[in-house]
Amino acid sequence: MKLIEKALKGIDGLDKDSMERAKKRLDSLTKPKGSLGVLEELAVKLAGIKKESMHEIKDKVIIVMAGDHGVVEEGVSAYPQEVTPQMILNFLSGGAAINVLARHAGARIVCVDVGSAADVYHESLVSKKVKRGTDNIARGPAMSREEAVRCIEAGIEVVWQEIDRGADLIGTGEMGIGNTTPSSAILAVYSERPLEELVGRGTGIGDDRLNLKLRAIKRALEINQPDPRDPVGVLAKVGGLEIGAIAGCILGAASRRVPVVIDGFISTAGALIAGRIEPRCIDYMIASHVSQEPGHGIMLRLMGLEPMIHMKMRLGEGTGAALAFNMVEAATKIIREMATFDDAGVSREIK
Amino acid sequence: MKLIEKALKGIDGLDKDSMERAKKRLDSLTKPKGSLGVLEELAVKLAGIKKESMHEIKDKVIIVMAGDHGVVEEGVSAYPQEVTPQMILNFLSGGAAINVLARHAGARIVCVDVGSAADVYHESLVSKKVKRGTDNIARGPAMSREEAVRCIEAGIEVVWQEIDRGADLIGTGEMGIGNTTPSSAILAVYSERPLEELVGRGTGIGDDRLNLKLRAIKRALEINQPDPRDPVGVLAKVGGLEIGAIAGCILGAASRRVPVVIDGFISTAGALIAGRIEPRCIDYMIASHVSQEPGHGIMLRLMGLEPMIHMKMRLGEGTGAALAFNMVEAATKIIREMATFDDAGVSREIK
Repeated sequence: MKLIEKALKGIDGLDKDSMERAKKRLDSLTKPKGSLGVLEELAVKLAGIKKESMHEIKDKVIIVMAGDHGVVEEGVSAYPQEVTPQMILNFLSGGAAINVLARHAGARIVCVDVGSAADVYHESLVSKKVKRGTDNIARGPAMSREEAVRCIEAGIEVVWQEIDRGADLIGTGEMGIGNTTPSSAILAVYSERPLEELVGRGTGIGDDRLNLKLRAIKRALEINQPDPRDPVGVLAKVGGLEIGAIAGCILGAASRRVPVVIDGFISTAGALIAGRIEPRCIDYMIASHVSQEPGHGIMLRLMGLEPMIHMKMRLGEGTGAALAFNMVEAATKIIREMATFDDAGVSREIK
Repeated sequence: MKLIEKALKGIDGLDKDSMERAKKRLDSLTKPKGSLGVLEELAVKLAGIKKESMHEIKDKVIIVMAGDHGVVEEGVSAYPQEVTPQMILNFLSGGAAINVLARHAGARIVCVDVGSAADVYHESLVSKKVKRGTDNIARGPAMSREEAVRCIEAGIEVVWQEIDRGADLIGTGEMGIGNTTPSSAILAVYSERPLEELVGRGTGIGDDRLNLKLRAIKRALEINQPDPRDPVGVLAKVGGLEIGAIAGCILGAASRRVPVVIDGFISTAGALIAGRIEPRCIDYMIASHVSQEPGHGIMLRLMGLEPMIHMKMRLGEGTGAALAFNMVEAATKIIREMATFDDAGVSREIK
């Protein structure tokens, strides 16, 4: 059986019994019912994922998927493509924002080369290269259908390996110069809104590049004619290698009942593909932040996800996911550590 | 010189030079300029507060101010007043939500009795009782003007003592059955909006109690005629003892150049009073979350503050502030620990 089929077969619904027990426990704790809002919702969701009303997080991992994009030749990004391998090495030597925030959260980082255009060597780099960057989506498909499946499977492989090593909370991250362009293209396939509302300034491009970006995405959609009912086809036609690997990472985590914290715009494009391949995997996703990229909030709403953090971030790498690990862990501690009304001798509501 | 005057005299503006140096440093780090959004804004603000472009947070403290409210006799709360002392003891034995979240953030808790109606004894409780609960604001002033000043001074005393002990990041917290009622009344003094938009369900009251609450606040405003130009008078007429102490805590922290993370609706009512007494103290405030209480967002906007966390919390105690400590610390680590473009050999923007 192919890896992707194996993963899909493993994805089941949340465990209602454990969720019910978690709710009951939360309502017995010394606080008005529901007053911790999303922290309580998270505790209930985690119970459903882990089939256990109270559990502890022991090994948090941010998986950073890297890939390049042929569409950069259209002038869509303000940074040269060489920044992708440079940043991979920065991740591996601990100097990037995601390193700082992962250390702050007590999380490990795994950096995966799914498709950088350059050759990158480092003993800690996980190499799963499917292709040396996508082809230019403004002129044809990003990759073949077979390559799209291989990206997804690379994500499944990496996440399963980390779960085997003990990972019990996954965060998605990415690096790839130009990757807000395919992410906006994927969103455009699934949203009815005008393209102008779905395309943003990425790392902070000016009006000229923004126009080039809009034109490139319009052309990509016209030339490739992606079919929304075929998410793997959408990935192959207008997607990215790291975006496919993120989708695989989510499907793989869901198949092993491990929660995945979704980072920003590019990660959520991967999540959108994963959710169209198998909608039940959405139950395993936790939205972290809403980025300054205008399409991000729209994307999250397409999946019914609500972000916890509003900090106008637009860096990617997994930085929003790393910040949100704090909330996920807080939720597990609330349900485990708070005193009940009976324990603490606190009076209940009069009504 | 009175304590309050001493504190007000000590409040100065942010240090522009340090802020400029912090901005420069942030722009040299391996990320697109400004791409970490509010994390970068926080790093710059902290530089201005501490007069130092990069600094480390070493001793985080949540100060929980407790007080009772005579207006509960109007039926505005679903919990009996005995819950205030019961929760104080819960804080001191470590079983409340704020204990769990403070431990999670690596912060200490200081619990202060400014005005509980009951006698509470515990070796770790800081006793600064000004009055055994406020008088019923629906029938007259909450307290005398002198008592209002004493509340504020209690807050200043406590925060100065903690700063002397090493505290370099303060979070505000509170406990007091009925305290969303005076908080809404304070907001109503400073907002033009109809009362219905400023008053919420607090711990989760039903429609009957919500109507009693609205009526009590209307009466409080009619009977007491608080004058917005006199914030100490507003506190005395329609405020609360813990709300005054929170205002004092903020003024005291600002006078010693220590940042204060503001929690939810009640804490922000205290912040509003502090900001009207001395507008420069607003520069020392960091907004944490926006609560489910409808007036909270309105209050924050009155001071030009934007919340980072959107998690539908409505518990108070300092729980939102404790969660936001994570972001504040993250900001200090970003500016100190990230590699520069030169260090990491990463190419800059082409433009």
